[in-house]
Amino acid sequence: MIEIIRPADIEKRSFEIITEILGDRKLNPENELVIKRVIHTTADFDYADNLVFSDHAVSRGIEALRKGCDIVTDTQMAKAGINKTILEGLNGQVHCFMSDEDVALEAGQRGITRAAVSMEKAARLDRPCIFAVGNAPTALVALKELISNGLVKPELIIGVPVGFVNVVESKELIMECNVPYIVARGRKGGSNVAAAICNAMLYQIRR
Amino acid sequence: MIEIIRPADIEKRSFEIITEILGDRKLNPENELVIKRVIHTTADFDYADNLVFSDHAVSRGIEALRKGCDIVTDTQMAKAGINKTILEGLNGQVHCFMSDEDVALEAGQRGITRAAVSMEKAARLDRPCIFAVGNAPTALVALKELISNGLVKPELIIGVPVGFVNVVESKELIMECNVPYIVARGRKGGSNVAAAICNAMLYQIRR
Repeated sequence: MIEIIRPADIEKRSFEIITEILGDRKLNPENELVIKRVIHTTADFDYADNLVFSDHAVSRGIEALRKGCDIVTDTQMAKAGINKTILEGLNGQVHCFMSDEDVALEAGQRGITRAAVSMEKAARLDRPCIFAVGNAPTALVALKELISNGLVKPELIIGVPVGFVNVVESKELIMECNVPYIVARGRKGGSNVAAAICNAMLYQIRR
Repeated sequence: MIEIIRPADIEKRSFEIITEILGDRKLNPENELVIKRVIHTTADFDYADNLVFSDHAVSRGIEALRKGCDIVTDTQMAKAGINKTILEGLNGQVHCFMSDEDVALEAGQRGITRAAVSMEKAARLDRPCIFAVGNAPTALVALKELISNGLVKPELIIGVPVGFVNVVESKELIMECNVPYIVARGRKGGSNVAAAICNAMLYQIRR
């Protein structure tokens, strides 16, 4: 039976159902809206366990966005999914360099992924940035290098690549970088999860 | 430990790992590459059970794409994720009407979702189309209406909205429409899943 519900109420009702299903499960209030939005995006309750946050990562992300920071991502899908109306209202923009010709060329020449090269390109932006990695573990490995060499200092790293090769390891690596992080531990994640985490923070600033 | 692997080999290795994990599990050979690509996109093995296919849905989708058909989707994220280079090489294109001003206006006036209105708009395209729904159950409900009224005849419906309100029901509904379908039964799905299914078919035509 299809329930008759006003479009504006669908999301509210969804969050109520998620809260019911989570039941007695205690979530850190600071992280709660991020976790619930990821579950809303995936219908996958594993994220209630998988998502790990450095201390006050959400507050730091929100604070950075409020002050006007950009978001760098490794997929056009995440870029498409992030709420650009709110972000631009805060003087931020989303960058994805994956399809740039110079990035493809350099990646081919060096025999590394475009994702890695695109993180190097992003490190040259003269702006505070949140890095939202939803696909490529090599992006996280590149970020770790850049941070270690003092070439970039992300406001926050959203480390949620998905997959089977180096994904688990790259996420563990990024948690050792002394940079605020939100990571989906294990194999799961994705562009949709990266965008959902960005939006969960943006919606706490403005709807 | 980060494994050193050539960028070109990452996907191949990922599919090998997915095959290993699936173990003895028998997949219908026609559906296998679709199922494995969805798992590759989500790292979620539930899709080995959730994905249901009408008879020869994959062959019909591939055949339609070969002949030159468009893809209509309900999110900009799915549009961003579908391989447009291959699709355009086959004389197809991707449409997403969700952000169109006329769609927003009409949805507001009628008190229905933009997704429903955008399916009605798509039904007026004078082209064979695959419908790939990754977000809005109301898009599937609208499609069912349009099909019943003889206003659209999709080549294939990819019905993989995600969520908690009317999602499960809308998928069951679309399986009764006498149209080829690929559906992710239950709550799970998403734009990433919709795009992965389209790409799994496109990659069987061309890489």
